[in-house]
Amino acid sequence: MPPPRLDPPPSLAPICSQRPYDRASHTYGKGYRDVVRGFRGEFGHPPDVVAFPAAEADVAAVLDWCSSAGAAAVPYGGGSSVVGGVEFTGDGYAGVVSVDTSRLATVLEIDRTSRAARIQAGIYGPALEDDLRPHGLTLRHFPQSFEFSTLGGWLATRSGGHYATNTTHIDDFVESLKVVTPSGVCESRRLPGSGAGPSPDRMFLGSEGTLGIITEAWLRLQDRPRWRASAGVRFQSFESGVEAARAVAQAGLYPANCRLLDAGEAATSAGVGDGSALLVLGFESADHAVEAWMARGLECCADHGGAVPEGVRSTVPARDEDKGRQGGGAVDTWRSAFLRAPYGRDALVSMAMMAETFETATTWSGFPTLHAGVRDTVEKALVEVCGGGTVTCRFTHLYPDGPAPYFTIVAPGRRGSELAQWDEIKAAASDAVIANGGTITHHHAVGRDHRPWYDRQRPAPFAEALRAAKRALDPAGVLNPGVLVDPLPRA
Amino acid sequence: MPPPRLDPPPSLAPICSQRPYDRASHTYGKGYRDVVRGFRGEFGHPPDVVAFPAAEADVAAVLDWCSSAGAAAVPYGGGSSVVGGVEFTGDGYAGVVSVDTSRLATVLEIDRTSRAARIQAGIYGPALEDDLRPHGLTLRHFPQSFEFSTLGGWLATRSGGHYATNTTHIDDFVESLKVVTPSGVCESRRLPGSGAGPSPDRMFLGSEGTLGIITEAWLRLQDRPRWRASAGVRFQSFESGVEAARAVAQAGLYPANCRLLDAGEAATSAGVGDGSALLVLGFESADHAVEAWMARGLECCADHGGAVPEGVRSTVPARDEDKGRQGGGAVDTWRSAFLRAPYGRDALVSMAMMAETFETATTWSGFPTLHAGVRDTVEKALVEVCGGGTVTCRFTHLYPDGPAPYFTIVAPGRRGSELAQWDEIKAAASDAVIANGGTITHHHAVGRDHRPWYDRQRPAPFAEALRAAKRALDPAGVLNPGVLVDPLPRA
Repeated sequence: MPPPRLDPPPSLAPICSQRPYDRASHTYGKGYRDVVRGFRGEFGHPPDVVAFPAAEADVAAVLDWCSSAGAAAVPYGGGSSVVGGVEFTGDGYAGVVSVDTSRLATVLEIDRTSRAARIQAGIYGPALEDDLRPHGLTLRHFPQSFEFSTLGGWLATRSGGHYATNTTHIDDFVESLKVVTPSGVCESRRLPGSGAGPSPDRMFLGSEGTLGIITEAWLRLQDRPRWRASAGVRFQSFESGVEAARAVAQAGLYPANCRLLDAGEAATSAGVGDGSALLVLGFESADHAVEAWMARGLECCADHGGAVPEGVRSTVPARDEDKGRQGGGAVDTWRSAFLRAPYGRDALVSMAMMAETFETATTWSGFPTLHAGVRDTVEKALVEVCGGGTVTCRFTHLYPDGPAPYFTIVAPGRRGSELAQWDEIKAAASDAVIANGGTITHHHAVGRDHRPWYDRQRPAPFAEALRAAKRALDPAGVLNPGVLVDPLPRA
Repeated sequence: MPPPRLDPPPSLAPICSQRPYDRASHTYGKGYRDVVRGFRGEFGHPPDVVAFPAAEADVAAVLDWCSSAGAAAVPYGGGSSVVGGVEFTGDGYAGVVSVDTSRLATVLEIDRTSRAARIQAGIYGPALEDDLRPHGLTLRHFPQSFEFSTLGGWLATRSGGHYATNTTHIDDFVESLKVVTPSGVCESRRLPGSGAGPSPDRMFLGSEGTLGIITEAWLRLQDRPRWRASAGVRFQSFESGVEAARAVAQAGLYPANCRLLDAGEAATSAGVGDGSALLVLGFESADHAVEAWMARGLECCADHGGAVPEGVRSTVPARDEDKGRQGGGAVDTWRSAFLRAPYGRDALVSMAMMAETFETATTWSGFPTLHAGVRDTVEKALVEVCGGGTVTCRFTHLYPDGPAPYFTIVAPGRRGSELAQWDEIKAAASDAVIANGGTITHHHAVGRDHRPWYDRQRPAPFAEALRAAKRALDPAGVLNPGVLVDPLPRA
């Protein structure tokens, strides 16, 4: 590990670290490329300083220092980015400061009547839920990274969460944001809805640390669910499952869970051995029994040949410990596999197996072409690059106008060449997603890894507007350079 | 009417008019100040030219001309702005060109599978619904201005529509936008959801013609509803009605209608003579019977003393002509009064009566203070300025974290002084809204009339970012000067 290229000023020294452990642990996110390099012990480009601000004023002081010193400031929540969001190795800066928000981790205020809370952005998922539970409240935002990611990270990357329909992204739960920018603190008004100009919050949601560092937010919360029903619906073909998923998504029923697994995923992660596709359908409510909702959802499925061999599992006002639990044999198996998948990935990496995921969203009418195009392209790339491998697909979130397909690749890597192999496959997959009308990311974010495809997706005038907004908020161009926009020319 | 200060270039002459009728009819919106001046025959500041682009290229050419000639370009949809959105009388420009989009009024493409359509922005509400009806589809966006406003106007102002909960604003139905800016055409990708950077569409939604002219959009549509249930729920106090409305909004039932009228509004617009507050509760679905939803909604109301003297009126798969019809004696009366209100306003103006509305949104916990503060302030102002008058309140839209209260003022004006009187009352009301934590507009937009209060609501760094974005997209600063941001310094 190279020595630090810059030192914090004395005023910031108490909240800054240059210890090798801190620098190493802030070098990477959790993408495939990160895990492989971590396993190899490669830490050639760590941040020079890791700052641990304990107050909003500390964040402002760190950004002031970075702006005057010409150091890149890379915001760091839980470090769970899978798209190169926390690693900047470019030139033109005096060094890199990782700004770790984990000391800003308090639930500051709870408004039980409005079901909202003011929460600091550095809080991790489990701590956030622990603090809300005594009030009978929950954010119910459970991205797969839940244990290892922070509220600020979810907000900055437009994270996808628990709800498969309607309120799919963290964006939907934002009442207001407080963001420290190099040009001052930007605090929006706490509002349930507004039509006063373009939404300030929507500019920062998805800004991935390029416009400022989110320090706190007022979030809309939920009462803890008490009624639940879930079912594993099997379809003889993936196509029938797609039609059923569309019917449910367009019915206005708003299931909490509605994940369609193709036969490959149903076999590997839900133990479905008969070649069926599986739709994991679940309703939940803190307010009312959900039988009527489930009954109609299953009718939609039956219209497309869906069968429910394991029946519906319902819970009535339930023990609190049941949170998140949704039953049915295949459903339970799937849920457990979902939560364990990232751990499994790391084990596969140690065996030089390549295991990665990528995701997108498209219209219902565009899905068949996108699905075939992506699968064919990636299968061909896997044969060429790895000699073979599997591509499977599930829907993670559904909209009335289209699904969010999520692809999983497992293939044998060649030890030492895994990164080059993965880069080639990822590029082929991304090309196919963009060529077939999808978005380069539905909820994993853009980071640095998705930049070339994001640039093709993003309208050019919007890119100009975003660069201009960044120049206004971050005139020295120090915030997370290379994410979303190129590093600004520095004076 | 003064003669035009500038003439279109020969290439644009065929799509431009300087006829007095066109100039007069594009002078004002439909606010109280507009109607009063129209009645007086005051048309001292008409646009110099009215352009009627018939294609996207025409819009670009008009903006090019305005940029090079230093003329203000004021986008004009239906001209129904009630906030001074279409009237620019400031200095520093060679003249004003009203850009009327009414020739861009075609439904271009329908995707039945994804339930979406590509629609030109100049189409009026009724024509849009007429074109969708043969396909069994509807946008179901019915702002009170529906007959006299356009899709582009709804998008540019973040219009509030039919649904009282969940999908309250036109924003929620936008799949993608095409916007002509002076720096080029900005076209977003058609996506049901995305996490790729800040949303480009959300920058233009609410931009009120300051960043570009929206020429078309892909919109999410609905199947036409076939099941409906509605009820008029009476409460002995407004406060009980508020509690019931909150319970329904937080229950996850998503009623299409959930409008709470205070006793004053219940009396004048729903014929409720016993001093009750009235909650107009309605569910609808294209997919399923809504009894379970209504039953639970009424339980929430009963918990707070709500009674349903006229019972529930349900319709099962219904004749198409029933669209929008939701029954119950008080409910029918209210609906009819709602649609006729703007016509009545004009009649009152002719009698020198002042009749206006303003609206906001706030949290449930903040509502009692806001309601009392606004009512007290406005009642005091009415006594001082008009010698008396009434202030009533209803909820137009509801969120889990707060309502959107809508206030109606009726007072005797003094002929000749109505505008000064109204300005004083409106300023007092706006001060009270902002001081009590509300937004200056939930769905009427900012325009020029709300600017002073919008500036207090909007975070300063966001204002800088918005100005920077405008400079990037509209370098000559010609688009709708004074709306949202001050006119840019012109070279």
